[in-house]
Amino acid sequence: MQHWLQLADRDPAALRKLVTLAADIKAGRTVPDAIAGKILTMVFFNPSLRTRTSFEAAMARFGGSAICLSVGGDTWQLEHRGGAVMNGAASEHVREAAAVLSRYGDALAVRSFAKMNDAREDARDPVLHGFAEHATVPLINMESAVEHPCQGLADWLTMHERLGDTAGRRFVLSWAPHIKPLPRAVPHSAVLAAAAAGMHVTIAHPSGYQLDPDVITQAEAWTAAAGTTLTVTDQQVAATRAADVVYAKSWGAVGLYGDAPAQAESFRTQADWQITPGHLSATAHLLHCLPVRRNVVISDAALDQHHTTIVDQAENRLWTQAAILQHLFTSQER
Amino acid sequence: MQHWLQLADRDPAALRKLVTLAADIKAGRTVPDAIAGKILTMVFFNPSLRTRTSFEAAMARFGGSAICLSVGGDTWQLEHRGGAVMNGAASEHVREAAAVLSRYGDALAVRSFAKMNDAREDARDPVLHGFAEHATVPLINMESAVEHPCQGLADWLTMHERLGDTAGRRFVLSWAPHIKPLPRAVPHSAVLAAAAAGMHVTIAHPSGYQLDPDVITQAEAWTAAAGTTLTVTDQQVAATRAADVVYAKSWGAVGLYGDAPAQAESFRTQADWQITPGHLSATAHLLHCLPVRRNVVISDAALDQHHTTIVDQAENRLWTQAAILQHLFTSQER
Amino acid sequence: MQHWLQLADRDPAALRKLVTLAADIKAGRTVPDAIAGKILTMVFFNPSLRTRTSFEAAMARFGGSAICLSVGGDTWQLEHRGGAVMNGAASEHVREAAAVLSRYGDALAVRSFAKMNDAREDARDPVLHGFAEHATVPLINMESAVEHPCQGLADWLTMHERLGDTAGRRFVLSWAPHIKPLPRAVPHSAVLAAAAAGMHVTIAHPSGYQLDPDVITQAEAWTAAAGTTLTVTDQQVAATRAADVVYAKSWGAVGLYGDAPAQAESFRTQADWQITPGHLSATAHLLHCLPVRRNVVISDAALDQHHTTIVDQAENRLWTQAAILQHLFTSQER
Repeated sequence: MQHWLQLADRDPAALRKLVTLAADIKAGRTVPDAIAGKILTMVFFNPSLRTRTSFEAAMARFGGSAICLSVGGDTWQLEHRGGAVMNGAASEHVREAAAVLSRYGDALAVRSFAKMNDAREDARDPVLHGFAEHATVPLINMESAVEHPCQGLADWLTMHERLGDTAGRRFVLSWAPHIKPLPRAVPHSAVLAAAAAGMHVTIAHPSGYQLDPDVITQAEAWTAAAGTTLTVTDQQVAATRAADVVYAKSWGAVGLYGDAPAQAESFRTQADWQITPGHLSATAHLLHCLPVRRNVVISDAALDQHHTTIVDQAENRLWTQAAILQHLFTSQER
Repeated sequence: MQHWLQLADRDPAALRKLVTLAADIKAGRTVPDAIAGKILTMVFFNPSLRTRTSFEAAMARFGGSAICLSVGGDTWQLEHRGGAVMNGAASEHVREAAAVLSRYGDALAVRSFAKMNDAREDARDPVLHGFAEHATVPLINMESAVEHPCQGLADWLTMHERLGDTAGRRFVLSWAPHIKPLPRAVPHSAVLAAAAAGMHVTIAHPSGYQLDPDVITQAEAWTAAAGTTLTVTDQQVAATRAADVVYAKSWGAVGLYGDAPAQAESFRTQADWQITPGHLSATAHLLHCLPVRRNVVISDAALDQHHTTIVDQAENRLWTQAAILQHLFTSQER
Repeated sequence: MQHWLQLADRDPAALRKLVTLAADIKAGRTVPDAIAGKILTMVFFNPSLRTRTSFEAAMARFGGSAICLSVGGDTWQLEHRGGAVMNGAASEHVREAAAVLSRYGDALAVRSFAKMNDAREDARDPVLHGFAEHATVPLINMESAVEHPCQGLADWLTMHERLGDTAGRRFVLSWAPHIKPLPRAVPHSAVLAAAAAGMHVTIAHPSGYQLDPDVITQAEAWTAAAGTTLTVTDQQVAATRAADVVYAKSWGAVGLYGDAPAQAESFRTQADWQITPGHLSATAHLLHCLPVRRNVVISDAALDQHHTTIVDQAENRLWTQAAILQHLFTSQER
């Protein structure tokens, strides 16, 4: 039995096979026949629009079904620490929850965002790994503290559709301002996907907005193996104007976790990192994972010009997740 | 590709065909075979009991499936204005949301009630039309600021079941008191349905409770074409006692939007508009869209006497929505 | 047409048949073929993890589908009293809600916990019986104020799996401390299930924590008929160490309803009722309905030792509910 926890857990060749499978499913060349009759149980500790809908649609479209549980917020909390005396808010331990939910369906999926209080705690991804340890069916990461691997695979498929062979093409992840600090799981997986796709990777962000060092190390290993480069820069426009693909994304500064006024001031002083048509060459493709705040993260003009690509990118969640499900269900059977 | 946005968008003959199709589906004379294998994505900005359950049941019963998203309240808001700088509560624009959700399923349905701050803004029905503009699959109105066309069609089917030929029969919509001001979408669609069904239409309400003038104009055009009449009166009992069908419904006064004490006082002084057996002739049928507050809107005695009709009316949501889905899915294919 | 409201409504032989059917379904010896194509509408006035997921999974696994409505909390309330003037929080009466929801699906299921303000009011189980009176399809109790009969049947199946013939074996329900008072529906159904299974039943709790007298009377009648005994004791360790099955469960004291400080103090002074390995003989089996607070209700050591049994018990919700659904759908057809 396999889980689907992080892009970093797999090698680029295995990831490429999944992208190819997704493209085949999308084109109707392959039917993911292992989904039929299966039940996917999804556990959301955080809200979702695209992830939930695309997983439900993938299950329904290929003859399976999905169960959605919204267990976050004030209503129900889960303990993941060993030995805890559970006299606080959490009424159930992940040991029981993961084991029991594994008995009702054929796969389990969990969304649990970074808490953004303590970057080292987030880097351990405790809720995801708690589920993985106790699940007895394949576990899917629907965005954890560290990665959003379903998004990363959809990003890759979209670049493949736009560029054909991605090897040696120039991928630039550009930080953008926002009104509140967001987690880094999406940029982490985007960088890993681009590195695994054999692209030159540039990460453009202002000082203080570095990504997780372990993710960077993994991406560097993949670019080195592919004979490409990984560069970090604070020269946004120079980077994005040279790109084949610009991936716009905002995230919070680790050093400002818990300091909302300083984070807000940082966004204000870097407001000109908003992506506009001037950031993009005539042949560049613009990606964003959505939801996107128009005229904060990306200007109307840039977004409207690249609307079809970004909607295709969201649609590709459906096809890459169908590929992931097919892979997990058939790996399980072997 | 067609949408299902308002009764007012279609002509009475087309609406009648849908009622006939619904009756045929209910009787088992027709199977809405275009639903099988389809996915309906429902987006709720407001709560729902009947609408959600009847759509889910219609999809499941005929081999499709439904995805329900509750995106209203504090958790997630949607921008619909062009050019907005999205630095407020809304984290996604309808341009992206409608386009993306169109990619996952085969039809999209939206519920977005009137805000009841500004009647002219509500009359533009901005959320519904924002979705309609950007959806690339058929869009269904599950109650917007202006109309509740699924309810209107169920109302018509119920009157057809009780009366047989509805042409020339007397339909009276009677305002009723409540404890809070409700939107006018249901009475709007009920009046349009009765007009399209060829009935004489009377709207009884106290001074200040007029319906939307555009809806009245449309209903008048349909009654004129049918050779029937549309009358507005404040003489409730005279109107309802002469009716073949009394449709009880409360709604708020446009002039009192935002003035809760004045609205409450208006309800108190018109408390005798509550529908009782004394309002109804021996042969009259009583309708209500539900939920209904007993002994506020309708007395126990009147409601219990007409319980079966009102439950049939709610059940007819299932059959008319199956007809709408069948119509949209087959129109799409042509 | 039959409902599934309480274990106490049926005789032990009928319950035993359902347990046998569930075991047959679990073993693949029987397929509950009446579920295919059916729709189950579930109404939750309180949160749920296992109940919702296991019912959804049971419907999906055997070709049916489920609709989940979360109507509790602040958003929507239901009136159940006859003659009420509904000018308060409740916007719909159970007369309409139960009748309408009966029209959309093939069975209806309701969860409505004890309010724990007035034990006599709870003992009347007004919401469940309001639904039962007005439902026109089979109604399933997913935990009401008095019983949790789905859980009770899963408890029985689990004991049958562990013990083989349960007749004459020793069942001990042991109260345990907690951080807040919980309802008594689970212990009520557990005691009834054990009595119906022909076991010697002991209920161990501190003074003031008695169960509902009507439930005890019913359980006594069943133990008397089986030639076994029903004993109530405050000598926990002596009872549990002599048991074949120890069912750990916390519940609140009726005399402390509404008095949170006194209830908390009572939990504190009885903290040593927490179940530990010292409470259990080498051959005893430990049950708990979950969720369980580790190191408050049961110690890590005891829970980890009996983890598989308790997860099996949760899994058995799926199989016993499939048996209940099969029974109700086939009874309906006769």
